[in-house]
Amino acid sequence: MIIVMNKDARHEDIENVLMLVQKLGLEFSILNNEEKTIILTQQSYDLNSDLIKALPKVEYVVTLNEDYKLVYKNINNLETKIKVGDCLIGGKEITFIAGPCSIESKEQLFKIANHLKNSGVKIIRAGAFKFRTSPYSFQGLGYKGLELLRELKEETGLYVISEILDHHDLPYFEKVVDILQIGARNMHNINLLKAVGESHLPVLLKRSYSATLKEFLFSAEYILMGGNKNVILCERGIRTFSDYTRNTLDISIVPAIKQRSHLPVIVDPSHATGKRDLVIPVSLAAIAAGADGLMVEVHHQPDLAYSDSEQAIRLEQFDELIRRSRKIAEAIGRKF
Amino acid sequence: MIIVMNKDARHEDIENVLMLVQKLGLEFSILNNEEKTIILTQQSYDLNSDLIKALPKVEYVVTLNEDYKLVYKNINNLETKIKVGDCLIGGKEITFIAGPCSIESKEQLFKIANHLKNSGVKIIRAGAFKFRTSPYSFQGLGYKGLELLRELKEETGLYVISEILDHHDLPYFEKVVDILQIGARNMHNINLLKAVGESHLPVLLKRSYSATLKEFLFSAEYILMGGNKNVILCERGIRTFSDYTRNTLDISIVPAIKQRSHLPVIVDPSHATGKRDLVIPVSLAAIAAGADGLMVEVHHQPDLAYSDSEQAIRLEQFDELIRRSRKIAEAIGRKF
Amino acid sequence: MIIVMNKDARHEDIENVLMLVQKLGLEFSILNNEEKTIILTQQSYDLNSDLIKALPKVEYVVTLNEDYKLVYKNINNLETKIKVGDCLIGGKEITFIAGPCSIESKEQLFKIANHLKNSGVKIIRAGAFKFRTSPYSFQGLGYKGLELLRELKEETGLYVISEILDHHDLPYFEKVVDILQIGARNMHNINLLKAVGESHLPVLLKRSYSATLKEFLFSAEYILMGGNKNVILCERGIRTFSDYTRNTLDISIVPAIKQRSHLPVIVDPSHATGKRDLVIPVSLAAIAAGADGLMVEVHHQPDLAYSDSEQAIRLEQFDELIRRSRKIAEAIGRKF
Amino acid sequence: MIIVMNKDARHEDIENVLMLVQKLGLEFSILNNEEKTIILTQQSYDLNSDLIKALPKVEYVVTLNEDYKLVYKNINNLETKIKVGDCLIGGKEITFIAGPCSIESKEQLFKIANHLKNSGVKIIRAGAFKFRTSPYSFQGLGYKGLELLRELKEETGLYVISEILDHHDLPYFEKVVDILQIGARNMHNINLLKAVGESHLPVLLKRSYSATLKEFLFSAEYILMGGNKNVILCERGIRTFSDYTRNTLDISIVPAIKQRSHLPVIVDPSHATGKRDLVIPVSLAAIAAGADGLMVEVHHQPDLAYSDSEQAIRLEQFDELIRRSRKIAEAIGRKF
Repeated sequence: MIIVMNKDARHEDIENVLMLVQKLGLEFSILNNEEKTIILTQQSYDLNSDLIKALPKVEYVVTLNEDYKLVYKNINNLETKIKVGDCLIGGKEITFIAGPCSIESKEQLFKIANHLKNSGVKIIRAGAFKFRTSPYSFQGLGYKGLELLRELKEETGLYVISEILDHHDLPYFEKVVDILQIGARNMHNINLLKAVGESHLPVLLKRSYSATLKEFLFSAEYILMGGNKNVILCERGIRTFSDYTRNTLDISIVPAIKQRSHLPVIVDPSHATGKRDLVIPVSLAAIAAGADGLMVEVHHQPDLAYSDSEQAIRLEQFDELIRRSRKIAEAIGRKF
Repeated sequence: MIIVMNKDARHEDIENVLMLVQKLGLEFSILNNEEKTIILTQQSYDLNSDLIKALPKVEYVVTLNEDYKLVYKNINNLETKIKVGDCLIGGKEITFIAGPCSIESKEQLFKIANHLKNSGVKIIRAGAFKFRTSPYSFQGLGYKGLELLRELKEETGLYVISEILDHHDLPYFEKVVDILQIGARNMHNINLLKAVGESHLPVLLKRSYSATLKEFLFSAEYILMGGNKNVILCERGIRTFSDYTRNTLDISIVPAIKQRSHLPVIVDPSHATGKRDLVIPVSLAAIAAGADGLMVEVHHQPDLAYSDSEQAIRLEQFDELIRRSRKIAEAIGRKF
Repeated sequence: MIIVMNKDARHEDIENVLMLVQKLGLEFSILNNEEKTIILTQQSYDLNSDLIKALPKVEYVVTLNEDYKLVYKNINNLETKIKVGDCLIGGKEITFIAGPCSIESKEQLFKIANHLKNSGVKIIRAGAFKFRTSPYSFQGLGYKGLELLRELKEETGLYVISEILDHHDLPYFEKVVDILQIGARNMHNINLLKAVGESHLPVLLKRSYSATLKEFLFSAEYILMGGNKNVILCERGIRTFSDYTRNTLDISIVPAIKQRSHLPVIVDPSHATGKRDLVIPVSLAAIAAGADGLMVEVHHQPDLAYSDSEQAIRLEQFDELIRRSRKIAEAIGRKF
Repeated sequence: MIIVMNKDARHEDIENVLMLVQKLGLEFSILNNEEKTIILTQQSYDLNSDLIKALPKVEYVVTLNEDYKLVYKNINNLETKIKVGDCLIGGKEITFIAGPCSIESKEQLFKIANHLKNSGVKIIRAGAFKFRTSPYSFQGLGYKGLELLRELKEETGLYVISEILDHHDLPYFEKVVDILQIGARNMHNINLLKAVGESHLPVLLKRSYSATLKEFLFSAEYILMGGNKNVILCERGIRTFSDYTRNTLDISIVPAIKQRSHLPVIVDPSHATGKRDLVIPVSLAAIAAGADGLMVEVHHQPDLAYSDSEQAIRLEQFDELIRRSRKIAEAIGRKF
């Protein structure tokens, strides 16, 4: 941290800052030039820099490094690879997670899942508890949906991911799912982040549609602090003025995360665009940009889906997506 | 759908609307009061409402399956007034809620609260559980903070509002606070909304910094559906590209909510601007725009506050705010 | 400017920076602590700081002051007051500028202007050249519109403001208008800014709906650099995700500009909201926040207006606006 | 309005649509090709198109009085290919346009251009007239820059593109450049759009960083209306709250334009990200998403560039970009 004092700072103002710096347990050294006093400290946290900024006659505080320690790439530059059964997320292979937005019935779930299994998908997404803007919209099958997921796993050997809305439901989820999903609207739900941080299951964390990169990584940091190292980051579009898509896919975040963090990153082209016909081109873009996988909404009858029907792709579109993705994956030296 | 015709609509204009309504297959009935003709239809879709809006002399179209039925202004146009002890939020009087961002210590809390009490404030805001972006920032005193609020009430007779982060803490809050606060990041936390919907306490619901007006009203609807009619809406700034303030205060939402809903609206100028020196002018603007009150962060030593130190105003600034607000309130025919 | 070198910067890297600093004509001094070299320079421009940031082993560059010299408040803290005939913009009085979006006909222009004159308005706004998103929309009467403005002035003694789109039209405008208006979409049109910077007429500069505060002030700086000191800044809403208004009025910019600049600021509530029914409350808010005036779209038959019909208020609404604004103005110690 | 039915629409589905079309009073005709039924109606409003979109088995509704008639895909679905010497933009081949942000000197321009020529680039970008936010920043070499471009063409046979800021400079540009560039800040400059609409030269139109898709296409429509059919659309990032990049690349607009328009689309990864290290991954994404080319800022000494030095890639990075782009291009069946 570099603290630059105002040029008319008096001795007491500087003492003031140093007292706080010492209180915070930070080592420091002082530089004087003709004009201004500059205080350098070795280590800092955001909190402290704000505290210091607010002291009288402090002109600037520059924080030398961002503070998500566990999320950050370590010295050895090792990337985290997450095992889900015989799948490895974050390795050479591109991971496909696919399935319906909501579980609507056993028949619907099994029909879609079986098709996807035949297409080579090993991890099925399907929502049991749904967040909906309107209290009058379909809210998901709840625990009954979880039970259907359990049956699906038993009968097909597929792995499943489903969104958890409340940390008190964790025991129920841990009995069924292979990956816990934190939805975009819960990216800031600290109690939930802390709870899944103590789980033995991998966590897929979606970026809030209004989160900065820093906030996104800090939410992952909450999970890693609990001891759970298996976090998958998921970009799903941000909210902007642009109105021809549901959200704006922030494609650049894929390489930007790769530069900063050791965690795998996947992209959700369905929520990012909200338009079925944009899902394939945007998915290819995500793979080319370095994403470790995709999470895609698929439905056998999208027009009749209970939720998000405009963005789910059809079963045959999914097969086309697989076919075209394979070519891009090979072009960048990744497997499938 | 409620179609309100302009008061100078002629017979033909009304016929015109009815023809389209029939074309669209909607059942309808007509209400006439002295001033205006109102056409009610039983069922509708957004699309139709656009068609109708475009007809001559149609003043408003309210789509009922936009679905916030309870939040919406009712036929009698009565505004909800919320009693907190001897305060009335939503009446003629402008309500001031003020206090520190976080409870830091008994001394700090009492010092600020006593000053505010002397300045005429009856409702104190003070956070016990704090949401922080970074896991390394100060997270609040928690249950110990609640206990300090209980002592404050006992000793001073002040009312208190504090933010609840987890619905499982509701019993603890119900024993202490007079108003439950739902923070911006929890505006979409359905379980929390449902839980406070069953509480006997009034709820102050903050708008998420990325919520549309429709989403904001839907979150209130979740609370009202539980039977709790006492919801106060709070605008606290939205996230935009603009970078000289922490958020962008969306001042227009105050009259826009008043046009649609019977619920009281207050403004939080502290989070909206994030800058101490903008709090007073922006507060005056909020009152002039029709807000029913303000929620302001105040600290006796803002530079040493544990959180949000850049935006808390000083005690003497608060007194200036009161003085200047009173004049605006009187100019628009409201009391103080 | 403070230049912090990376801790593994070698001698050559530091030499490199110093060479550039010297090339740019900046005086400097060097600070060494155990860890890092820090170079302080006395004076800088944005351009240079970017140049330096990009040099090898430069870790941070902190620019000590922003660079709009002429727009900035000077030592004496004098505010600019702009004379338009017997009106003074930026003084004690709140200035009202009102009129139709576009000049549609002589009859329309005179009808509206005469009403406004009777209501006490001295400056009429009316567009001759219109920017329209679609090439198929009404583009304004052009030079014929200017001619109608000239007749209006002659017959009524009113002052007029109208938007100039092309700097080659300046001679025509200078013969007619009393204030040159630069529209939001031209805020970055440097040639136009430079041209009006050499005019003897005051300039009303609208903020682009996507401009930061800094960019807005820099555009004003372009005009002041040409020698024209009479610039009025106008906030008219910014583009955000929020969709119930046409734009989002950034009310905080009024006091934020007042803190930084000596120039008067007015607010355009019509474009900011795009909704007739929000114009009055938002106008009152603007005055309470410290705006020096308002620019409002008024039409005698808004539903039939050729452009922006949803936002123009009716003549009787304008009179109500005046009545209610007067009370707010008096409450904050301003005249009318 | 063009209504495209899904290929598995049954007779009843089509009847359904026709019933509504008749109800709305629209004349229509029906086209059948082997695959799909297409219904054309003569006249429509946005509202109606929403009504129709919601009917079962309706795949697309194209509203003609959304009004970009010339920009829109025609019935034959032919895509526009633009000839620049022996280059074809919009064909099978991916077009690379590269060069420095600004022309700084003859030496700099030729050094970069010659390297790019050897790497296979045929079209050089280089700014002579520069738009800068601050009046104190480097504003370009102006006409002297154009002269250097002329020399470059003569000596190397390369084609050049450069940004025109003022329509009165068109004769000077027409003598030198092969493609006229309209910058993002001039996307709404109607006089400039009209002027280049009458030029014989192709125009590259950059999307404003705050333009909706519709506004972007309308600006192109202004050019096509003048008779100039050779417009290349260029996405270069939009302004959002996200702050780790200079802008947010809106990758989805590439396929979204391809669905609507016959014009070629390219992507500028340099302005979109503002970060050198993100240029390559984002470029690969653009090609995978279907872009017809890239426009990239390259500099032999980016750290010393007079403008935008943080985003220009180094010569050797450009060669890596070419190498990796070729693989993606081949994977999607395009040449290079």
